[in-house]
Amino acid sequence: MGESLGLHSFGNDPALLDTVDAINVACGFHSGDPDTMAETVAAAKEKGVLIGAHPGLPDLVGFGRREMKLSPEEVEYLVLYQVGALSAFLRREGASLSHIKPHGSLYGMLARDPDLMRGAARVAQLFDVPVYGIAGTAHQTVCEELGVPFVAELYVDLNYGPAGELLIQRRPEPTDPDAAAHRVTRALTDGVVEASDGALLTIPFDSVCVHSDAPNSPEVAAAVRSALDSI
Amino acid sequence: MGESLGLHSFGNDPALLDTVDAINVACGFHSGDPDTMAETVAAAKEKGVLIGAHPGLPDLVGFGRREMKLSPEEVEYLVLYQVGALSAFLRREGASLSHIKPHGSLYGMLARDPDLMRGAARVAQLFDVPVYGIAGTAHQTVCEELGVPFVAELYVDLNYGPAGELLIQRRPEPTDPDAAAHRVTRALTDGVVEASDGALLTIPFDSVCVHSDAPNSPEVAAAVRSALDSI
Amino acid sequence: MGESLGLHSFGNDPALLDTVDAINVACGFHSGDPDTMAETVAAAKEKGVLIGAHPGLPDLVGFGRREMKLSPEEVEYLVLYQVGALSAFLRREGASLSHIKPHGSLYGMLARDPDLMRGAARVAQLFDVPVYGIAGTAHQTVCEELGVPFVAELYVDLNYGPAGELLIQRRPEPTDPDAAAHRVTRALTDGVVEASDGALLTIPFDSVCVHSDAPNSPEVAAAVRSALDSI
Amino acid sequence: MGESLGLHSFGNDPALLDTVDAINVACGFHSGDPDTMAETVAAAKEKGVLIGAHPGLPDLVGFGRREMKLSPEEVEYLVLYQVGALSAFLRREGASLSHIKPHGSLYGMLARDPDLMRGAARVAQLFDVPVYGIAGTAHQTVCEELGVPFVAELYVDLNYGPAGELLIQRRPEPTDPDAAAHRVTRALTDGVVEASDGALLTIPFDSVCVHSDAPNSPEVAAAVRSALDSI
Repeated sequence: MGESLGLHSFGNDPALLDTVDAINVACGFHSGDPDTMAETVAAAKEKGVLIGAHPGLPDLVGFGRREMKLSPEEVEYLVLYQVGALSAFLRREGASLSHIKPHGSLYGMLARDPDLMRGAARVAQLFDVPVYGIAGTAHQTVCEELGVPFVAELYVDLNYGPAGELLIQRRPEPTDPDAAAHRVTRALTDGVVEASDGALLTIPFDSVCVHSDAPNSPEVAAAVRSALDSI
Repeated sequence: MGESLGLHSFGNDPALLDTVDAINVACGFHSGDPDTMAETVAAAKEKGVLIGAHPGLPDLVGFGRREMKLSPEEVEYLVLYQVGALSAFLRREGASLSHIKPHGSLYGMLARDPDLMRGAARVAQLFDVPVYGIAGTAHQTVCEELGVPFVAELYVDLNYGPAGELLIQRRPEPTDPDAAAHRVTRALTDGVVEASDGALLTIPFDSVCVHSDAPNSPEVAAAVRSALDSI
Repeated sequence: MGESLGLHSFGNDPALLDTVDAINVACGFHSGDPDTMAETVAAAKEKGVLIGAHPGLPDLVGFGRREMKLSPEEVEYLVLYQVGALSAFLRREGASLSHIKPHGSLYGMLARDPDLMRGAARVAQLFDVPVYGIAGTAHQTVCEELGVPFVAELYVDLNYGPAGELLIQRRPEPTDPDAAAHRVTRALTDGVVEASDGALLTIPFDSVCVHSDAPNSPEVAAAVRSALDSI
Repeated sequence: MGESLGLHSFGNDPALLDTVDAINVACGFHSGDPDTMAETVAAAKEKGVLIGAHPGLPDLVGFGRREMKLSPEEVEYLVLYQVGALSAFLRREGASLSHIKPHGSLYGMLARDPDLMRGAARVAQLFDVPVYGIAGTAHQTVCEELGVPFVAELYVDLNYGPAGELLIQRRPEPTDPDAAAHRVTRALTDGVVEASDGALLTIPFDSVCVHSDAPNSPEVAAAVRSALDSI
């Protein structure tokens, strides 16, 4: 959430805030700006949802969805910068940081590269919050290595490749709400998710992630919520 | 037009392209990006509309609508840079630059300050194109001083202050299409426009400007077109 | 300090760190970047100097020295964002935020406009730190109004206008170290500073500010330090 | 050249302009700004050197030296944008565009990926200028494929890997002027260059490239010039 940029609105934040338990707030690098952060944090505080930082790559035009070759120090410091910035808005609302969820291509880079992931995990350690990520990737292994709590996520609006890797897209495609609900239900009852090639993957998870920028994301989130509630 | 920024869409470009004769294309400083410029110029070329440059202040978050204190040289060079960038996309489509129309707060700054306006007018001189602006302001007087052709604009979706100055807003408010059509008709038949305080202003014009970012701008543009056609 | 930007080095930070008691660290809007902030804070922590935030206008090319028309909320949020970002680097070093010193044209805008200054002062209030500013301006009056501690600064490398206003420059000119020392000594002993027109101004101060970006700023700082020590 | 950014100066442009035959001018994405471009082009015009465009990745903090995953269209349009911007400054000086030389990591990406290189080559085609690049890479093969003239470069201040690939660095290291002169002489007389592993490479070239940002780049350029003149 909070991915508007000045006059450029983005996503479906108000509609989603009534459905979700936790949000990830953009911090100005891939999108977002100070005014949007203030507004987003105030609205989320009022709804009582958990507020996490969603630090991204420094690339507004690419929306943080174009990989960049960064060093572990660069990752650590750009995550630190963005988490610090968001923390100030939380302090202003008397709220506290719930977690860190890296954004877009940064998320994918960290899943694959333990050295980069250590940079981000050190920030979580410093702020004493968990990292949201993908089970079985460097997200999880590095968190365990550094003693950082880890929250595994299931995706309902992105596909998984044959090896369980997330197929991150530049532009969101509409997701069928029923298919999203079905994926959640099946993952919870049978413990499996179908990959893009039809293979059945085991994806452990504690949280379900819904992107805010698909046109019908409120319907997707509502369908997921309903599926969760009915189990 | 062309004020999208990466994944952040903006305005009503496709709907407007069928109605207007000429467009002003953002050049990346207040908004726009290379991909958007390519797409916008290609679409405009296909529709056969005149394509002008819409150079703005270097402020994405403020959308070029926050005044900045610039020197005349800074104005000249940032206009030159942006006009040059757009020209390359025109060259790619075999189209030529029609005009220069400064954007947002830069437009307002140039209307009031002849020294700044000379910077922009020198770029128009170099590219041998007219400037679109407000009659009776430095837009016009400097163009005449430098021998640059000048095209006077009438606004239908912004108010005029008592002295005929344009009241530029950060966020567009919806405009009543009938009121817009009425303003055009009255300006053409009686030669006057009503200012925000009720005073009647004489606003000479050769062109009618409609902003692309109001939610109903296609309806406003259609109403203006219809009013123009019926005279 | 910390006004380097990626490979673009800036200022004389290492040479100055041995001379000063307190520094103001750029936070990425007028200059600075996450890596530079990490390095600057670590070096300052090691030297034991006080570390303040130096939030600026969002304008890298203008180095925050071109005024922008901002609303009080925009000022509050962009100061909040930058102070929060710096705080994270302080937390990483086990250091605490000493103060907030607005940068460049933002500093000048806040001196003149109490509404804008309230935005910045609210951030100081939230972080429970003093603001560094110019006595007798809105810097001071707003701090007193909101109960925010205020530290008055004397400048030795900028001139004062007849009304005591600071004449902020885009590019630093070299300052004669002897003249700087003389200004400090005279201000401390006679209580006056000579304005650009020769008038004698009364400038109360608790701190002496030396810019880091003049070529000879280490000599200026050393001369000031020596003048202070000999009184 | 022209890699200053606002108040952040960079490189050794004035000292180098007396030595070189051709320069590559930064266009604002990896560094440079409109004022710097105006100044750089004017100075180069006066010295009579050839002026090429040096388009880079959109990453000021990383100075275009951090690879980004871009599509061929993104490459084409960001090169087109930057070349167009520079062309306007050339037009202002009555100079013409000599060539296009992609910058930093973009240069490396284009050497390896023909699809990306086609994007850049199409811009050279449109502006009817040669591309400067590395012989035997996609720089050359794509130029030949599209009928774009190609100018092969020899580097004297970067090392070559065993396969002849250029080892691009984030920060320049000082180069021994004698070693640089020796490399040029040997390349011209024996036709070989020593790679980082001692292997002897055949590097055909029409032009010798010297980076402007090493502290001693004027000495390196002078040594290269002298070596060239004495053959």
